[in-house]
Amino acid sequence: MTRLELHPDRLLPADPALRDVARSIYESVRDLPIISPHGHVPVSWLADDAPFTDPTSLLLSPDHYIMRILHANGERLEDLGAGGTPLDAEQSRAAFRTLCAHWGEFAGTPVKLWFEAQLVEIFGIDLLPGPDTADAIYDTVAAQLATDAFRPRALYERFGIELLATTDDPCDPLADHARLAADPTWHGRVVPTFRPDHYLEPARAGWNALIDTLGGVSGVDVDSYAGWVAAMEDRRAYFRRHGAISTDHAHLDARMEPLPADVAEALYAAARAGRISADDGATLRRHMLFEQARMAVDDGLVMTLHPASLRNHHPATFERFGPDVGADIPISVEYTRALAPALGAFGTSPNFRLVLFTMDETVYSRELAPLAGFYPSVFVGVPWWFLDAPDTMRRFREAVTETAGFTRTSGFIDDTRAFLSIPARHDVSRRVDAGYLARLVAEHRLTVDEAHAAAHTLVADNPRKAFL
Amino acid sequence: MTRLELHPDRLLPADPALRDVARSIYESVRDLPIISPHGHVPVSWLADDAPFTDPTSLLLSPDHYIMRILHANGERLEDLGAGGTPLDAEQSRAAFRTLCAHWGEFAGTPVKLWFEAQLVEIFGIDLLPGPDTADAIYDTVAAQLATDAFRPRALYERFGIELLATTDDPCDPLADHARLAADPTWHGRVVPTFRPDHYLEPARAGWNALIDTLGGVSGVDVDSYAGWVAAMEDRRAYFRRHGAISTDHAHLDARMEPLPADVAEALYAAARAGRISADDGATLRRHMLFEQARMAVDDGLVMTLHPASLRNHHPATFERFGPDVGADIPISVEYTRALAPALGAFGTSPNFRLVLFTMDETVYSRELAPLAGFYPSVFVGVPWWFLDAPDTMRRFREAVTETAGFTRTSGFIDDTRAFLSIPARHDVSRRVDAGYLARLVAEHRLTVDEAHAAAHTLVADNPRKAFL
Amino acid sequence: MTRLELHPDRLLPADPALRDVARSIYESVRDLPIISPHGHVPVSWLADDAPFTDPTSLLLSPDHYIMRILHANGERLEDLGAGGTPLDAEQSRAAFRTLCAHWGEFAGTPVKLWFEAQLVEIFGIDLLPGPDTADAIYDTVAAQLATDAFRPRALYERFGIELLATTDDPCDPLADHARLAADPTWHGRVVPTFRPDHYLEPARAGWNALIDTLGGVSGVDVDSYAGWVAAMEDRRAYFRRHGAISTDHAHLDARMEPLPADVAEALYAAARAGRISADDGATLRRHMLFEQARMAVDDGLVMTLHPASLRNHHPATFERFGPDVGADIPISVEYTRALAPALGAFGTSPNFRLVLFTMDETVYSRELAPLAGFYPSVFVGVPWWFLDAPDTMRRFREAVTETAGFTRTSGFIDDTRAFLSIPARHDVSRRVDAGYLARLVAEHRLTVDEAHAAAHTLVADNPRKAFL
Repeated sequence: MTRLELHPDRLLPADPALRDVARSIYESVRDLPIISPHGHVPVSWLADDAPFTDPTSLLLSPDHYIMRILHANGERLEDLGAGGTPLDAEQSRAAFRTLCAHWGEFAGTPVKLWFEAQLVEIFGIDLLPGPDTADAIYDTVAAQLATDAFRPRALYERFGIELLATTDDPCDPLADHARLAADPTWHGRVVPTFRPDHYLEPARAGWNALIDTLGGVSGVDVDSYAGWVAAMEDRRAYFRRHGAISTDHAHLDARMEPLPADVAEALYAAARAGRISADDGATLRRHMLFEQARMAVDDGLVMTLHPASLRNHHPATFERFGPDVGADIPISVEYTRALAPALGAFGTSPNFRLVLFTMDETVYSRELAPLAGFYPSVFVGVPWWFLDAPDTMRRFREAVTETAGFTRTSGFIDDTRAFLSIPARHDVSRRVDAGYLARLVAEHRLTVDEAHAAAHTLVADNPRKAFL
Repeated sequence: MTRLELHPDRLLPADPALRDVARSIYESVRDLPIISPHGHVPVSWLADDAPFTDPTSLLLSPDHYIMRILHANGERLEDLGAGGTPLDAEQSRAAFRTLCAHWGEFAGTPVKLWFEAQLVEIFGIDLLPGPDTADAIYDTVAAQLATDAFRPRALYERFGIELLATTDDPCDPLADHARLAADPTWHGRVVPTFRPDHYLEPARAGWNALIDTLGGVSGVDVDSYAGWVAAMEDRRAYFRRHGAISTDHAHLDARMEPLPADVAEALYAAARAGRISADDGATLRRHMLFEQARMAVDDGLVMTLHPASLRNHHPATFERFGPDVGADIPISVEYTRALAPALGAFGTSPNFRLVLFTMDETVYSRELAPLAGFYPSVFVGVPWWFLDAPDTMRRFREAVTETAGFTRTSGFIDDTRAFLSIPARHDVSRRVDAGYLARLVAEHRLTVDEAHAAAHTLVADNPRKAFL
Repeated sequence: MTRLELHPDRLLPADPALRDVARSIYESVRDLPIISPHGHVPVSWLADDAPFTDPTSLLLSPDHYIMRILHANGERLEDLGAGGTPLDAEQSRAAFRTLCAHWGEFAGTPVKLWFEAQLVEIFGIDLLPGPDTADAIYDTVAAQLATDAFRPRALYERFGIELLATTDDPCDPLADHARLAADPTWHGRVVPTFRPDHYLEPARAGWNALIDTLGGVSGVDVDSYAGWVAAMEDRRAYFRRHGAISTDHAHLDARMEPLPADVAEALYAAARAGRISADDGATLRRHMLFEQARMAVDDGLVMTLHPASLRNHHPATFERFGPDVGADIPISVEYTRALAPALGAFGTSPNFRLVLFTMDETVYSRELAPLAGFYPSVFVGVPWWFLDAPDTMRRFREAVTETAGFTRTSGFIDDTRAFLSIPARHDVSRRVDAGYLARLVAEHRLTVDEAHAAAHTLVADNPRKAFL
């Protein structure tokens, strides 16, 4: 068995000329609080504060990063607990053995970094996952999960989290958020995020039922387009009252294009009548997204865009397991033209903040850095989903900084369902940024003091400026 | 005259912290057999085993990499033997002098690396190409080519080739392949590859004649669409019986989109009647490519895609010299949407293997790694044509590994007509991958053992898994 | 106050294995003359040779790189003298204080490198810009600007400029150019550049008035399409007689597509009648651009393309401040298909030179290097606008060299209105290229001699071959 160790200098540049500088920069930000303004941890975990039941349902089944790599390497999703497939105790253990048996196939991916950091730093395990160590790891994790120190709130505190955002349906009553916020024994901050994607896709199956629900929940008559606007504004206000700081949007493109009022009304009426074409649905969706931007100027909720993922690429997998099992595949994205109407209208509005994420690296230097390098409202979202890995994060800084500097990026987001991986994800980001800054120092492009200041900007200032 | 030397550490990272690790990784895979599942060496060379006639027709004229750089720097293709232009002895020597006179213009390109490695390692020459050394190099090469040790089969053995694939027309009788395979004195493995591009472009001039030939060769009536399907299946089976392991496809896009049977039949009839439009031709081609995928599931031939090259960009050059003289220019490519129908149908079929190559680096992290990171049938093709160079290979690993790991790439392919460059091309790939892995070790992202295992995966396991 | 110093090894690789080699390469080209074949310095500065009036109007207000970063970080363009907003003495000083107060936000951008190099090397200032140093810097710069040694011609000589190109309207009488060239006390070389963008956009507001002017200036009846051609040829000849070496073109795409004569004539007539659609306008523009290529073959003016910037992205800013204040945002670009007609017609013409610039890095390896690696007429433009920064320049070399070598790129262009930044910009380019070459040496891909030769090619030979 190979002993599992975390090298204190992991992910820092190997070059001795850089490593000392990088270590000093990293150490200056290592222990700063975690601000996590976009993610998918269930608020109920913290509201209930119940112990986690087993290693597989906590560490494996909810994580589509792990799921898809095991699937690509020949495993069946049903054996891993995908899509809520229930696993009994023996199946949970078997799934965990499967993961460990495939551990070599995670080499080179950030999953290896995050997972091994969890084992060492959270569970104190020094065994490399593998066929021979699977049971020992499983048992050690399971035993600790049963203790109070590993209940959700204890981990939240131990992780040094300052803010954690969830992702929520606009009609969600946010009861768990309210319950948690009202709990006098709770001292953290968990906020909801308004995610109206399906409500903005009028040609999508089920849209009318969603809008009916929206009308019901908001108490607004949504038969007219004006009603849709009013109901949306009502729910955004409800989210704000429950602590929300942002809205999140993921469609096939980033276009926000206003329609004349009568056209919007006519398309809305057609959609409510169930007679809207796919093209008209996209047209109305782009108008509705523009309206979300307009509402953001009014209510101050930060708007984040995550476009251009072709969801559920494999229909048979979706039918059996539902979304979020690793079968979403990126497509190219365009921002410059797509955002021209909205930025023309709101780009210099002091109350508007727009954070632009991408899975298409080509837009970093071509579109996002130039946009954030002119518009005070625009922030370049840091690498996210698929790109949240060390080499990609380095490419991101190299592509964005020379045009936009350090002050125009969003701060790291972990975007994860894997609660226990949050510290490791932020730590990877801090290490990679420290390495990038160390190179600029070693090339005499920044002084050591300037690099330390930039590191603080990236970790501490930017997420506050973009989100808080 | 500068002495030509190959440094033993060439292409390994310069950083001393990395180089020792890189060297050890490289040495562990340096001498593994060469598996070359896609290339353009004529099988007749090995079937006939006749001595090569002269340096120019072996090393220069067939190699469009060399040809295009000389052309860009002012030389005339006819003087270089392009497109089968016959060169007499003096002209061959003159062409070789031209190459040597321009040697400085190859600096920074992989041609320099491959060619110099051939001179040193195959011919034992220590003269840097230049005006003063051209004749001496020419004469030394020519003298050795006349000896038995430099006949094709001797070189095949010396190069340590385990498998070499050719590229062949579906109607090719594969007589040379059969002759070689039947030769009891031959112990290597050369396999044909089924390349039906022109048979899948119904709007292309000459298509009907090709289909007539296809019908004749297969003995199937190709007047109906069903006949086209049956004839294709027949020829694929013929290729399989002659050892083929894969089919190769190069069109302007990667789309595979099935048509309803009646639509396919109607378009096929229109095409056979010579009345199909360019757009309908593309539609039918995309259907036919989907059919090739369906056949691949049935017969197990690996499917490789090489799309998005605008062939013969300069018409006057094409008219005079034909294809493959260096005037093919890449365009952007899209895979996520293009492959959704085929992967929806066959993506998890155990019998399906699809290897995706590109000349558009943007798809590595955005599309190919996510696809290969979910679908067990999809492999990311390693850098090929235009991208088969050290820095690009490094970018490839950096773009793909973090999402797909090491097990989902294809193994190196040399894709070359330049037989003598094959060892150097594979060697460059092994060196670059060793350097990449050494960095991951130095950054404590892999242990040394894990990096050695990854190197073996890349060189030995992946080509077998993807192709054999 | 932090002392401002320029490290002699700045921008060279930190790795000691590379730095010595890089320094030696850099030193071999550091003092070679500056050839600046594309830029925006007003010729009147050199023709008049009047002292510069104040630091702000020289160093800040004309530079959209600085302007946009200050704007993104919350400053108002009117306070910075944007778009010719007049600033009195106190406002100029206030604007300069604003710049210095925001200096930390320029960290990581090339503006920091260029500006600090100007302070140290031109003005001998060793104060880091900041709130506490703004006035001292301002006063020191102002005092020196009033002296003869800082008048434009003295600086031109001190900078070691061999050639400087301006950018000019086709109807410009070039009077300042003529006056400067005729001045017997002037020994430099400043040449105009023919920039006909607005004359090639028939659907653009104001086009007819421009064409009327063109007719008037050239003395050619422009009522017919033939007249447009003759007038253009006349003005190109006029520019050539005044020393022009190139024409420059910036449209939304790079397409050059000839129309049949009757179609061109009909569209031209419609445009002159004020009745052309946007689509037809684009069609006619692409024809007119093809005609510019045809004229280039005839008159030998080098053709440079700078496509795919969406100008004036923020309409309110444009209305108030006009163009060139930092609100132009790139879009993706396509060259392979766009240039097929023109390169098919002229690509191997000995008299044709076409330099292709981009703000979309994806075309470097995919399209530009392959085009310049086949066509003797095509040169890859070096990183320009947004991309003229150290890491991007390095990516450019890594993306282009392996396909096109060192001889097919354009030589550096500074493209700037900021006259005093020209030496620093060329210096950054030379340093970055030296670092790239040093790595190739350290990886044994080039000998030291080959790297020195390549550096000379990049700095001295390429601009002459592409432009002179």
